[in-house]
Amino acid sequence: MARITLDISMSLDGFVAGPDPTLEDPLGKRGMELHEWVFGLAAWRAEHGMEGGETGPDSDLVAEYVASYGAVVMGRRMFSGGEGPWDSDPNGRGWWGDDPPFHVPVFVLTNHARDDLEMQGGTTFHFVTDGIESALAQARDAAGDRDVAVAGGCSTVQQFLRAGLIDEFELHVAPVLLGRGERLFDSVDVGDAGYRCERVVSSPAVAHYLFSRSA
Amino acid sequence: MARITLDISMSLDGFVAGPDPTLEDPLGKRGMELHEWVFGLAAWRAEHGMEGGETGPDSDLVAEYVASYGAVVMGRRMFSGGEGPWDSDPNGRGWWGDDPPFHVPVFVLTNHARDDLEMQGGTTFHFVTDGIESALAQARDAAGDRDVAVAGGCSTVQQFLRAGLIDEFELHVAPVLLGRGERLFDSVDVGDAGYRCERVVSSPAVAHYLFSRSA
Repeated sequence: MARITLDISMSLDGFVAGPDPTLEDPLGKRGMELHEWVFGLAAWRAEHGMEGGETGPDSDLVAEYVASYGAVVMGRRMFSGGEGPWDSDPNGRGWWGDDPPFHVPVFVLTNHARDDLEMQGGTTFHFVTDGIESALAQARDAAGDRDVAVAGGCSTVQQFLRAGLIDEFELHVAPVLLGRGERLFDSVDVGDAGYRCERVVSSPAVAHYLFSRSA
Repeated sequence: MARITLDISMSLDGFVAGPDPTLEDPLGKRGMELHEWVFGLAAWRAEHGMEGGETGPDSDLVAEYVASYGAVVMGRRMFSGGEGPWDSDPNGRGWWGDDPPFHVPVFVLTNHARDDLEMQGGTTFHFVTDGIESALAQARDAAGDRDVAVAGGCSTVQQFLRAGLIDEFELHVAPVLLGRGERLFDSVDVGDAGYRCERVVSSPAVAHYLFSRSA
């Protein structure tokens, strides 16, 4: 059965997004700094349809993640940054243009029903209005024997962690101090959830912590 | 002039101590797990008067830290776990027995005046009742051209960070999830304090992040 995984970048002071996100600055102030380690990597560039880039352990790790999932679950905020009815969402087709980097079915949690949105490159967005368990069931069906990746944003990830639904997660702790923003472990206590560290590796740009637990 | 440094272990979810500290369990529930990476290292064992242990990058980093400081500042809680008048503190000579591992003058922040306490091996505890700036001034005098290390606990470290007094800090992010306890970056915002990451290194047991800023 598919594992439910989470792969997220966090600042050293615990934030997974900066404060005050806008359409121009979707990750909030300085939020892009969390991801600077990834943009130059060959595996990230390939996922986004670009050639070249750095190879090495960081890139291998990203490639492994990208190959691992057969479906993605994300929150409305991660999809478009918007809220409310779709016809008033200025970013209603998502952040990623016509060929999003997922290349698998993506299940978007929302309170507002909407028809599927089929994009290029194998990405189809499905809009789920009846909660995370339903999204997960649909994503599992779509993923086959591959994993279901819970992608973000912060509050969606927290919902899944609180509900005890994540089997494995990798935190990429970036050497930046944001000071403010959305803190992953705010009101989320996974101290007794049975996660064990499987691996710690680092490059000069980031350290990666992989945790999992038995089913 | 001496730099003011900080060297502290933190869980991946941001805690530098577990909840509910007691005399038997001074670091709080599961707090010892934050430091598991250090106990087997040759440099840590040497500092504590023991032979043997693992050599390698983690140990080198500890040795470098131990050699760097000429004085230490700590809070009363780190010193004894107690509070109130000294004659009713059951741990009034500190946690470390007759030969504490500091081997330099140590300035203890307290509200209760007390004579100096000279121990074996070069450690003398001085009790400072007039605040962190005074403790720092005295520690600077004592340290000569070496650094002043701010040792802990959490609230003391937070006071120094909030006051903008730390020149350089190293965070050892241990691959453990405590869930609860004392969070280093609670109500401490160093996002605009001008720190830059100098180095990220890791072993399978821990990742080390070194930050500094120009004076």
